[in-house]
Amino acid sequence: MKIPKPLAKVIESFERLPGIGPKTAQRLTYYLLHIPQVDLEFFGNALVNLKKETVLCSLCRNVAEEDPCPICSDIGRDSSIILVVEQPLDILAFEKTGKYKGLYHVLHGSINPLENIGPDELYIEDLLNRVNKQDSKNVKEVIIGTNPTMEGEATAMYINKKLQNSKTQKLKITRLGMGIPTGADLEYADEVTLREAIEGRREI
Amino acid sequence: MKIPKPLAKVIESFERLPGIGPKTAQRLTYYLLHIPQVDLEFFGNALVNLKKETVLCSLCRNVAEEDPCPICSDIGRDSSIILVVEQPLDILAFEKTGKYKGLYHVLHGSINPLENIGPDELYIEDLLNRVNKQDSKNVKEVIIGTNPTMEGEATAMYINKKLQNSKTQKLKITRLGMGIPTGADLEYADEVTLREAIEGRREI
Repeated sequence: MKIPKPLAKVIESFERLPGIGPKTAQRLTYYLLHIPQVDLEFFGNALVNLKKETVLCSLCRNVAEEDPCPICSDIGRDSSIILVVEQPLDILAFEKTGKYKGLYHVLHGSINPLENIGPDELYIEDLLNRVNKQDSKNVKEVIIGTNPTMEGEATAMYINKKLQNSKTQKLKITRLGMGIPTGADLEYADEVTLREAIEGRREI
Repeated sequence: MKIPKPLAKVIESFERLPGIGPKTAQRLTYYLLHIPQVDLEFFGNALVNLKKETVLCSLCRNVAEEDPCPICSDIGRDSSIILVVEQPLDILAFEKTGKYKGLYHVLHGSINPLENIGPDELYIEDLLNRVNKQDSKNVKEVIIGTNPTMEGEATAMYINKKLQNSKTQKLKITRLGMGIPTGADLEYADEVTLREAIEGRREI
């Protein structure tokens, strides 16, 4: 027996998502047969409209409903600091802390030669222009908040070099603090993290 | 910052799926922003049409595009044997073996008092009618292929009792063979499985 075509189409779409294999795709699809048609239509329409109803903010490249995005257009935020992140989801994580009041810049990835992603595929040029062309108030600090992975570190180094070369004003370039995360067990921390924690120690 | 509404809708829909938590739902949704619009429309339309374009076969209750389903309408299959399964996906698993040539009956669940699923929520009555009312050729055997779980066993016992009481012809009622699965390591087999394997031993 072949899987009926209407189901096969949904399975095929699920399989393309990261972390969802053929078995999970089948299981999810057959599960959907038991939910009301109105919920299926809500889901289906939400997918069709996902990209139609969102834009990338022309300033920070975050995903938003309007351009500029709510953060860039918020006059209460400190436009002299820009936190550079890899993905829009990283912004959500920082916003949850409630600690950061500056602006963001989303690269939409990191430099990854194995996947053919070079600096030109990321919004790095936009960042440089933004830092140097800011009219109203000069950018005083760029915090590089890429992930602490090989690719993230390479991206951070690249951006640092580019900013150092192109900057037209006095500019502080910082990297997020590294060390042991809250709640971690020192016993299981890897040596790189511990080395960073010792180097980044602070007086109490 | 709040998540933009078009994204929130997709996240909400993903979260309702089994095994997908809030974090995975967010990750999948942001991933979808990078796939072409044509693929999003394919996915969305497939979801909307999932239930519209499928029916439950009036005989075996399998999900299919037409009624009766391809298996029930296949004259090459042995209509004297019915294999009772919990889910349509179970049929796919049996069909892959290429070994079974009889018909199926899908219960769409198992008796589960904790989730308020009683015998009336399953297609058990349909099975009884089907076994007793078969016109052309009498059903000679019913194989109960529910899962070897508490719920599956309870369902098997219930169906067995009902069939014994209602049968109008000579009827063989069997349960799938239990024991050690191929490729398993005896060392790690649980005691119930081993007991079943000893009880179900066969001459070689």
